[in-house]
Amino acid sequence: MKNLYFVPLDEINNIRTENLDPIKKAKILSDIFRINTLYMITKAGSGHIGTSFSSMDIATWLWLNESNFIYFSSKGHDVPALYSILLGLEKLDFEMIHKFRRLGGLPGHPDIRTPNIVTNTGSLGMGISKARGIALANRLNGERKQIYVMTGDGELQEGQFWESLQPVANEKLSEITVIIDHNKMQATGFVNKTSDLGYLEKKLDSFGWEVARCNGHSFRELKNILFYFKKVKDKPKILIADTIKGKGVSFMESTMVGDSEHYKFHAGAPCFEDYMTAINELLDKTFAVLKRGVRLKNTSWPKRIAPSGKEENLVNAFGNELLKIGKENKDIVVLDADLKPDGGIEPFEEKFPERFIQCGIAEQDMVSVAGGLALKGKLPVVHSFACFLSTRPNEQIYNNATESKKIIYIGTLAGLIPGGPGHSHQSVRDISALGAMPGLTMIEPCNKKEARMAIRWAVEENKKSTYIRLCNVPMELLYSLPNNYKLKEGHGVKICHTGSNMRDLAIIGYGPILLKEAIKAARILKNRNNAITIINLPWLNYVSIKWLKKLLEFNLIVTLDNHYIKQGQGEMIASAFARNFAKHPKIISLGVKEIPACGQNNEVLKYHRLDAQSIAHTIEKEL
Amino acid sequence: MKNLYFVPLDEINNIRTENLDPIKKAKILSDIFRINTLYMITKAGSGHIGTSFSSMDIATWLWLNESNFIYFSSKGHDVPALYSILLGLEKLDFEMIHKFRRLGGLPGHPDIRTPNIVTNTGSLGMGISKARGIALANRLNGERKQIYVMTGDGELQEGQFWESLQPVANEKLSEITVIIDHNKMQATGFVNKTSDLGYLEKKLDSFGWEVARCNGHSFRELKNILFYFKKVKDKPKILIADTIKGKGVSFMESTMVGDSEHYKFHAGAPCFEDYMTAINELLDKTFAVLKRGVRLKNTSWPKRIAPSGKEENLVNAFGNELLKIGKENKDIVVLDADLKPDGGIEPFEEKFPERFIQCGIAEQDMVSVAGGLALKGKLPVVHSFACFLSTRPNEQIYNNATESKKIIYIGTLAGLIPGGPGHSHQSVRDISALGAMPGLTMIEPCNKKEARMAIRWAVEENKKSTYIRLCNVPMELLYSLPNNYKLKEGHGVKICHTGSNMRDLAIIGYGPILLKEAIKAARILKNRNNAITIINLPWLNYVSIKWLKKLLEFNLIVTLDNHYIKQGQGEMIASAFARNFAKHPKIISLGVKEIPACGQNNEVLKYHRLDAQSIAHTIEKEL
Repeated sequence: MKNLYFVPLDEINNIRTENLDPIKKAKILSDIFRINTLYMITKAGSGHIGTSFSSMDIATWLWLNESNFIYFSSKGHDVPALYSILLGLEKLDFEMIHKFRRLGGLPGHPDIRTPNIVTNTGSLGMGISKARGIALANRLNGERKQIYVMTGDGELQEGQFWESLQPVANEKLSEITVIIDHNKMQATGFVNKTSDLGYLEKKLDSFGWEVARCNGHSFRELKNILFYFKKVKDKPKILIADTIKGKGVSFMESTMVGDSEHYKFHAGAPCFEDYMTAINELLDKTFAVLKRGVRLKNTSWPKRIAPSGKEENLVNAFGNELLKIGKENKDIVVLDADLKPDGGIEPFEEKFPERFIQCGIAEQDMVSVAGGLALKGKLPVVHSFACFLSTRPNEQIYNNATESKKIIYIGTLAGLIPGGPGHSHQSVRDISALGAMPGLTMIEPCNKKEARMAIRWAVEENKKSTYIRLCNVPMELLYSLPNNYKLKEGHGVKICHTGSNMRDLAIIGYGPILLKEAIKAARILKNRNNAITIINLPWLNYVSIKWLKKLLEFNLIVTLDNHYIKQGQGEMIASAFARNFAKHPKIISLGVKEIPACGQNNEVLKYHRLDAQSIAHTIEKEL
Repeated sequence: MKNLYFVPLDEINNIRTENLDPIKKAKILSDIFRINTLYMITKAGSGHIGTSFSSMDIATWLWLNESNFIYFSSKGHDVPALYSILLGLEKLDFEMIHKFRRLGGLPGHPDIRTPNIVTNTGSLGMGISKARGIALANRLNGERKQIYVMTGDGELQEGQFWESLQPVANEKLSEITVIIDHNKMQATGFVNKTSDLGYLEKKLDSFGWEVARCNGHSFRELKNILFYFKKVKDKPKILIADTIKGKGVSFMESTMVGDSEHYKFHAGAPCFEDYMTAINELLDKTFAVLKRGVRLKNTSWPKRIAPSGKEENLVNAFGNELLKIGKENKDIVVLDADLKPDGGIEPFEEKFPERFIQCGIAEQDMVSVAGGLALKGKLPVVHSFACFLSTRPNEQIYNNATESKKIIYIGTLAGLIPGGPGHSHQSVRDISALGAMPGLTMIEPCNKKEARMAIRWAVEENKKSTYIRLCNVPMELLYSLPNNYKLKEGHGVKICHTGSNMRDLAIIGYGPILLKEAIKAARILKNRNNAITIINLPWLNYVSIKWLKKLLEFNLIVTLDNHYIKQGQGEMIASAFARNFAKHPKIISLGVKEIPACGQNNEVLKYHRLDAQSIAHTIEKEL
């Protein structure tokens, strides 16, 4: 019988109230919080162990020993560590331990709707600015609370970090203390190999901050430095805490991977064997300090659906095609912002390292570098998550657009799903944010075949720039594209038809997630004997009027946006009908209306009424 | 007879070919280029004298003495200096001297469609990233050209500047030399008062660059440092050039303004008296070195339309109302990104300095600081130009939006007009970039009255966040709002009706520029006896369906967007018709289709077919 284990609240309370030296207590509790963090992440099936464990000792020390303070993390993906602390200190309902990354539970990234969460995170680098706003508001209210901000080290590649440093020093906001969890590893590998930070102490000092450095796993050093920091009244303070990613479980510690870039525990849940080894190691450690065993509770090992092998991985299909094209076209240069494994671009990097630029977490710089490359005749292919790529360098993309040079942007992790990371990662605003960009065609492929076609079209056929929006969830699809299918700008393609006539209803969408739900919805509606045609329209910000004309025969058009309804594909289709045809079918548009919910994929789709059942239900009311 | 003077090409050539010491030659030519810069800016009626003159000696030295190099300015608004140099060195058609900020002429900010302009500028801070892209492309092509990038000093407040520094040092791109035109003044005042840069040399050095500092007006020092820089082969180089804004004309020099923040020559053209004094001073200087007079040519002083006194200044009306509201509501905190005189917010700053935060050229930091303030119950009012505010901190605005705290964003200089600064400043993409932001209502007032109402509505009635889009061109309007007019979300108001029935045509728009053109268009069409109703719909991303229903009586609806047609207000209206009414009027949408042209206001409107005549013509074809 496979189980998952956590340390229950009463046991944590026992330890908290034991008469122990604070350092010893922090030692025990930080490992107990690690056990509970591992519980949450393993139960959820995803989460960031490495960064949670590297920041755990620092966060534990602060929460056990500070009072009347504000604490938040700017990197955000270490939030499981924070949750486990807040749960243990009864600052969160302990039952929530079972609801990490679940609808109505504890989101994958910080959200202020959770008690004791101070601010939401988005892409990286916003923390110090937020802290400054909080400090200034406090001062206006006559308050001077200590504010602690945790940051990552890869996060220091973001310009906003540096943008925010000087004003805080100029304003002498000494109530702000920043702690850099310097674990030397970011998503895609070692920080110094990705985009080296240079002389960190010298840099921070030159911006007018009080700088200290210590072992971020030594409670004694942390205690001394935080004590010293309180005496500095004329400067903000910043601590470079040297930490180890995955600290606490030997084989999860980044120092164990040597020069290998393949650190397994940045994101994702451990397998059962790894999990059990880790728990036992952590229990041994607490036993050594506490001199007794820790009482555990257990739940059963979460059921996971095994892959059938028929899942389509669009990102890899894109990446493999890019590799092929890269062999033919020597102008292609690929740029990445520390997310290459999620972008399918590692095969290209491996084959053409001289034409691959790892920019680190520096989207603005990356996009403007791409602009420079394009000015000199190169064809840059620029990758990041859609949520970051469409927004962080939004002005830089426009600046490039005004130069009318061809650039290809690849936005992955697009749409509502996966639902676990939460709204900072669920890109449902990129069609809007980039849709009016002059000379930019936006396309989202619906399967592997179309993903390959999309990059080939962008390189070989489109004279202008392209944004390829990619879903990162491999899934078994219920449709395929016709053998003779070719991409034609603004034209859609039927992927499914039920019923005997053509007229009743067409559902138009894009991308694998909602097209699959549409097909399932059509199956649910089958008994009604309505004719349902499902159309894949991969073009997100342009529709051919000639093609649209063919849809006039339908009575009802349902548009499906894996995006906010506002300024999504459906809005484009509806406005095109209105502007071009005196009479057109009734149009209803489904899509995201609210800030995306965090949860399991099916929960999230259902919450937004974009699962097959809800779609079928909505259509039923209209028919 | 009032004249404008320039030094003609043959006279420049005479001096260039004289047998003079290079330093002496640079001295003379830089002042001649100043004369020609002044000619261009005064003729155009706008342009940036201060920054052109502070950077002139550096740029002149480079262009006279370097060969086979790449040069561009990252700040961009010093481009008149560069044009005058390129014109004088026959790298631009000299006739273009008469076409600064004119359609088909020399744009207000750099654009690569102009010969010898390397890259377009947008908002600040992109230059080093662009240079890196160019350098990397060159290296891939086996080239190692010297690349010189000019930056401002206020520009160093932008995070992208710091984001871009480290990778260039890591890659040892020693062909890149950055020159900081350190004139100590930015748009709204002294750099050290706006957002002090701190220990500049120490900072730059800590990022791994070779740093030097010199008098940016000493050709000898410039020569020596550039010579030294060429010997440094393992690092990129950066020169802090201490300069004087407005250098060359005594009363334009920033050192003359003492502690006063009112430096007159940042932007805009001089009056006749100032112009003549300046020209004479520059001529005296060249005489002293050249030992003879410089031959001039002249054109007549440009005609300027004197203000009638009836112009409506929306920005000031907004600002005055904000001041009033600020007295009543102590939670309001105003933030600015170095553009306060254009935002009407100086009265607020003067009255409530403790509730005014000057963030400098740091939009990302500003918006996240606002987020922090909002988290603590303040009501931030955040100002920048619409083009920068909607894009640079696009992700930060979304991050704030996910926290659902109320924030008011003020985007000024919205739309196509003024047409002089060029596409980097013509904000015609902000409705798209922000339109899908959850909980954000976007509104553009059409006159002073509505501008006052807009800020009051945002503070007192709207529970959520608001983006107020403001036109900065004071103009006499041809309409007024009804006495009993009240803002009602999603509802429009008739501001003009011609003809005897109601049915023929409704023109829907927003903001003073196109509503005024619409009224003029209606007057042109008057003879046709068609009924024309002109409607002001200030709501940019939400329309009430109940209100829209009233428009079903029209035969034709024309939407007018001072924005790209894509994802503009017209698209919202068209899609709302399509989704809600089985039958609706014919809809045509006018707006911007291409990258905005630079030119005089009337030229630009005409180019985009958004002037009254073009609008009337388009409508005529439809009627």
